[in-house]
Amino acid sequence: MNPVEIIRNKRDGKILTVKEIQYFVKGFTNGEIPDYQVSAFVMAVYFNGLNDNELYQFTKEMIETGEIVIPNANMDKYVDKHSTGGVGDKLTLIIAPIVAACGLKFPKMSGKGLSFSGGTIDKLESIKGFKVNINKNDFIKQIDEIGIGIIGQSENLAKADKQLYTIRDVTATVESIPLIASSIVSKKIASGSKNIVFDVKVGAGAFMKDINSGLNLANTLVELVKKFGGSSVAVVTNMNSPLGHYVGNSLEIIEVVECLKGNMPKDIEELVYELAGQLLIIGGKTSSLTDSKLIVKEKIKNLTGLDKFKELISYQGGDPSFINNYNLLPQAKYETIVKADNEGFISFIDAEKIGMISLNIGAGRMKKDDEIDYAAGIYLPRKIGDKVEKNDIIGKIYYSTENIEINLIIKKFKSAFKFVQKPEEETKLIYNVIR
Amino acid sequence: MNPVEIIRNKRDGKILTVKEIQYFVKGFTNGEIPDYQVSAFVMAVYFNGLNDNELYQFTKEMIETGEIVIPNANMDKYVDKHSTGGVGDKLTLIIAPIVAACGLKFPKMSGKGLSFSGGTIDKLESIKGFKVNINKNDFIKQIDEIGIGIIGQSENLAKADKQLYTIRDVTATVESIPLIASSIVSKKIASGSKNIVFDVKVGAGAFMKDINSGLNLANTLVELVKKFGGSSVAVVTNMNSPLGHYVGNSLEIIEVVECLKGNMPKDIEELVYELAGQLLIIGGKTSSLTDSKLIVKEKIKNLTGLDKFKELISYQGGDPSFINNYNLLPQAKYETIVKADNEGFISFIDAEKIGMISLNIGAGRMKKDDEIDYAAGIYLPRKIGDKVEKNDIIGKIYYSTENIEINLIIKKFKSAFKFVQKPEEETKLIYNVIR
Repeated sequence: MNPVEIIRNKRDGKILTVKEIQYFVKGFTNGEIPDYQVSAFVMAVYFNGLNDNELYQFTKEMIETGEIVIPNANMDKYVDKHSTGGVGDKLTLIIAPIVAACGLKFPKMSGKGLSFSGGTIDKLESIKGFKVNINKNDFIKQIDEIGIGIIGQSENLAKADKQLYTIRDVTATVESIPLIASSIVSKKIASGSKNIVFDVKVGAGAFMKDINSGLNLANTLVELVKKFGGSSVAVVTNMNSPLGHYVGNSLEIIEVVECLKGNMPKDIEELVYELAGQLLIIGGKTSSLTDSKLIVKEKIKNLTGLDKFKELISYQGGDPSFINNYNLLPQAKYETIVKADNEGFISFIDAEKIGMISLNIGAGRMKKDDEIDYAAGIYLPRKIGDKVEKNDIIGKIYYSTENIEINLIIKKFKSAFKFVQKPEEETKLIYNVIR
Repeated sequence: MNPVEIIRNKRDGKILTVKEIQYFVKGFTNGEIPDYQVSAFVMAVYFNGLNDNELYQFTKEMIETGEIVIPNANMDKYVDKHSTGGVGDKLTLIIAPIVAACGLKFPKMSGKGLSFSGGTIDKLESIKGFKVNINKNDFIKQIDEIGIGIIGQSENLAKADKQLYTIRDVTATVESIPLIASSIVSKKIASGSKNIVFDVKVGAGAFMKDINSGLNLANTLVELVKKFGGSSVAVVTNMNSPLGHYVGNSLEIIEVVECLKGNMPKDIEELVYELAGQLLIIGGKTSSLTDSKLIVKEKIKNLTGLDKFKELISYQGGDPSFINNYNLLPQAKYETIVKADNEGFISFIDAEKIGMISLNIGAGRMKKDDEIDYAAGIYLPRKIGDKVEKNDIIGKIYYSTENIEINLIIKKFKSAFKFVQKPEEETKLIYNVIR
């Protein structure tokens, strides 16, 4: 078989055979097919796509280039939630304990955050002692015992994906829907999930900038998981403005605790009920969203969600005492307050700009191996729709390094806000639910 | 500037700026932009093309990565002919002496043949003593003195093209019209030609398989040369069946001599009159094809074309005595005769198959550095439209190596022929003339 022929076939919009896909994925994983052929191939895929069968086969081959963490037998019993990444997105840490408290098994393997999008694992690592590397057997035992576990993604999952992503990143082929879908689903299946609720985020603070791409990705993900015998729902949600009041690792841990105590900002609340609700349905606990929501409400009210979160932290070696004393979390050296220059109603807070600021002050990673300042972050006391008077506090910036030009940061922070003189119609948070 | 942005812009169908094109061409030539980005870029160009201005700029930048062989002042006086490559295409060697005999200056730099397509230089090298490497100043002197010179292409022309072609060849991006055009024209302009008649070959034995691609390329070439201030005509011609009766280097030299003596097969004759005629027009010798053709006829009849060919050979160190004794050319060890299995009229001789056979028996190159057997080749006594009786000779295969499976070759040879019971309408040889 000849890689040039395979590239040519995809270039010409032909449907690749199973053998061609096997050959290509194996070939680039073991180094027989060089990078320059891989990049031409992915660009051809960018233009001509992969149909359902090609995508399934491609993903299946990617899975086989790495480790299968969870034995197939366990997969049916597990549920998982995956977000395509946003700014201030701490939903997993709220939802996982709640659904585990409902009796679902929620084993979660999560990648590290990159660019403006924070990672669940990074947030957990701001908790003293919390271990994110646990071996496979202990992890399965943990899920059996407490129904929840959140660990870092094995480096050995779908090795092909890592290589492919490295190339896509530098060849303007990241934004290919089938390649995004195969990247996500290959790691999900390899890590033991096939009952998955996807949160496909769309907007300024997401990788998908427009709703159509988001819907397209949502459909592709759901169909792909089905091909693997799983069940899946994708919720397409608005990620134009940061979620909740906090962006930054330890700050978001605080917000998670507050939410599990019942103090949820409106945007988080809407998404928690929807996503946890969908998880309860695909996990077989309820058959309608109305039923689901009642159960979720109860788990928050009776604090069993928070208890489960505490149990998770303890089980994985963390010290949960910060739950009653937030000062036990990493603290930033500096805190800069930002005030409104004028009065008005907030109509937009640009999530990408807020995400980039959090990156600039050390709360995120530019490159894979960058260190994170867990205490750094941003507080957003006022949200979209809020009335603000001149000199009201619209933000606090927490940081610990002297190396940042705080005046530039403040300027950038302010530029993320749009004000209007009359309150506007509420922005929609949930665009669509695909199943 | 960031190569990923440039790839993304082209991927998204944007028009690249002059700076972006300069940056990209320089970058991949000096190794700063790695192969995998180049291949993603050319695949994006394959899909989204380059507009006239982008193509001009891209070609200009390619030229500047290499040597400029002929000073600008000389270029206006020169004419050139370029074929996109076919099987049995020895037209340059017939046409160049004829137009030089008419007083035009015809300096020709020619690449080596690759795959099923033979190279002009390879054919000339089958003549004992003929030198194809001549330094620039001697070459210009030669053109001044005898009006004709045919040498190998400098390795230093448009270096970017060589690198780009290496990548295109292995990433299924050879067939991009703007990339083909920039590859051809960059080398033409760098080697001193800007008054060019293109023979754009289309069909089984050409790189362009369909007429529309051929027309598209023809238009692109003509427009591109104009942008460089040159004048240009492109003739789109049928390359489904081999040209003339011979394929193979020394065999084609014999056919060239016969043609210059006035013994032209019909297909060669039609193309020689058209292409030489167009050259006389763009070279300012005539103003109509009718006038051109009369002059060409005269140069053949009075053998001044042949004399010029002889002069060319002597000037470049070759021994022209073979012109009266073909046995002085390289001779093959073996000659295998192929006879018709049935009677009928020949309706098709597959040029690609004949070309591949000539490659298999050593007359061509698979890879750039392969050695050529100058004596190897194929004789096709019968052409399309000819009536053939059972056991009539339809081919002779000349070869010198024992390593070939001659029975397979014969089988393949026969499979190149199609026979019909009634003579068919004559196939068109010239599809279109673009200027």
